[in-house]
Amino acid sequence: MGKLNRQVEIVCVGNELLIGKTLNTNAHWLARRATSLGMMVKRITVVADDVDEIANAIRETLKRKTLFIITTGGLGPTFDDKTLEGIAKALSLKLEVNEKALKMVREKYEAYVKAGRIEKVELTPPRVKMAKLPQNAEPLPNPVGTAPGIIMKVEGTSLIALPGVPSEMEAIFDESVAPLLKKEAGKVAFFEKSIYADGIMESTLAPLIDQTMHDNPYVYIKSHPKGEEEKPHLEIHFSTTAKDSKTAKDRLEKAIIQLSELVQKNNGKIKF
Amino acid sequence: MGKLNRQVEIVCVGNELLIGKTLNTNAHWLARRATSLGMMVKRITVVADDVDEIANAIRETLKRKTLFIITTGGLGPTFDDKTLEGIAKALSLKLEVNEKALKMVREKYEAYVKAGRIEKVELTPPRVKMAKLPQNAEPLPNPVGTAPGIIMKVEGTSLIALPGVPSEMEAIFDESVAPLLKKEAGKVAFFEKSIYADGIMESTLAPLIDQTMHDNPYVYIKSHPKGEEEKPHLEIHFSTTAKDSKTAKDRLEKAIIQLSELVQKNNGKIKF
Repeated sequence: MGKLNRQVEIVCVGNELLIGKTLNTNAHWLARRATSLGMMVKRITVVADDVDEIANAIRETLKRKTLFIITTGGLGPTFDDKTLEGIAKALSLKLEVNEKALKMVREKYEAYVKAGRIEKVELTPPRVKMAKLPQNAEPLPNPVGTAPGIIMKVEGTSLIALPGVPSEMEAIFDESVAPLLKKEAGKVAFFEKSIYADGIMESTLAPLIDQTMHDNPYVYIKSHPKGEEEKPHLEIHFSTTAKDSKTAKDRLEKAIIQLSELVQKNNGKIKF
Repeated sequence: MGKLNRQVEIVCVGNELLIGKTLNTNAHWLARRATSLGMMVKRITVVADDVDEIANAIRETLKRKTLFIITTGGLGPTFDDKTLEGIAKALSLKLEVNEKALKMVREKYEAYVKAGRIEKVELTPPRVKMAKLPQNAEPLPNPVGTAPGIIMKVEGTSLIALPGVPSEMEAIFDESVAPLLKKEAGKVAFFEKSIYADGIMESTLAPLIDQTMHDNPYVYIKSHPKGEEEKPHLEIHFSTTAKDSKTAKDRLEKAIIQLSELVQKNNGKIKF
């Protein structure tokens, strides 16, 4: 299975992300989950609640031909939930009421009536809006909220739209999206381990990492400064993608031992 | 001062963001600071530590002609710090040792010798690397770390590169970048206020927000579901951009009063 086949892009929609009101934990969660399922996240893009901004981002992302595009946000009932309109515009498709999605939405409001939260099921325009999907899109059930996600095939890419509320995004991902990613990744999975170094500067560590990566071509090593200026403390992160955990662990261990010895020779201290 | 003139894009470089190892607090911090200084963040892009990925993102971002582009990450001494190489490639410029930047780097290592952290100042290749800037770039002093930031003019855009270590990124921004943003924004600033609603569904709130925004054209209102499925709780966020705080407060207050009354008429409860 080639590298290209396992690529994912994430597109997050929401003014709250661009004004710095909300920390983008959705991108972080999705990137971590997709990576651990064996995928490679190629790019994350954040755009405003604006049809043209969304449409442009979707068009540009589709051109990079990743296997999956996952969007978050903009699926709800309010005027500024514009993701499906943006996707439809990018693909020159119409939005139309999807009967399967409308049934999902209606059943949610029926449950809200039973729970005593609303008096009766009224499919008002903001509620019907959540079932207006781009032509050819399939709704994905939302186990914890009202707005369904969607999935649609655009040439070789599966374009998936998830809500912005983290609990809803995560629930739809786990139920409907994770199995698709896992299937494409096959047996490939991502493995990682960090060690910590004290008493060595990052610029001194740099050539040691170069040498270790040269000798361990399947292991990626990156240093992350964590300490104060006066007290250098470096996290050294080792990662590899492999078809089984034994191969991965052997690879990581070999690289960790080599680099640890080099650090110690340069008067650094290693902590596991 | 028009809308276009106040636009900023943020480009974050780092594999750790794409594998979901690190939460992108840098983008959040920069977006919040730029917004509060009167700027509008148009897009955030996250790409890998890869020269071509960085170069592509920079080229695409430059085409959107925002007043500022701010990058984070990839300025350090290790092999995978590739942001300046990516910028140079995007602009078909060479990287060359900048004497001013080299002086900054040398002075840092002289200080590290004084502090007893290293024995002598050796300008090894990984250390000189931090002073190799794209032609025409100016270094920005790093008050808390080693690698300087850079700034360069590309047609109407100021392209600024900051380190990925949060304390260093923030220090260079506050010292060298914030004054430039503030100057361009003039007296324009961003104001916001949230109220909270209970006992009303987002789909019921949606048309009330529409009506309030229609009657208050300079106020942007967005609802954020915060509660559990069984107990709806909505944050309603009001924001406006204005030249003085009195205008902003009057605008926000008028919109908040109108929407609060509408929510209460629909059996919702408002909390301030």
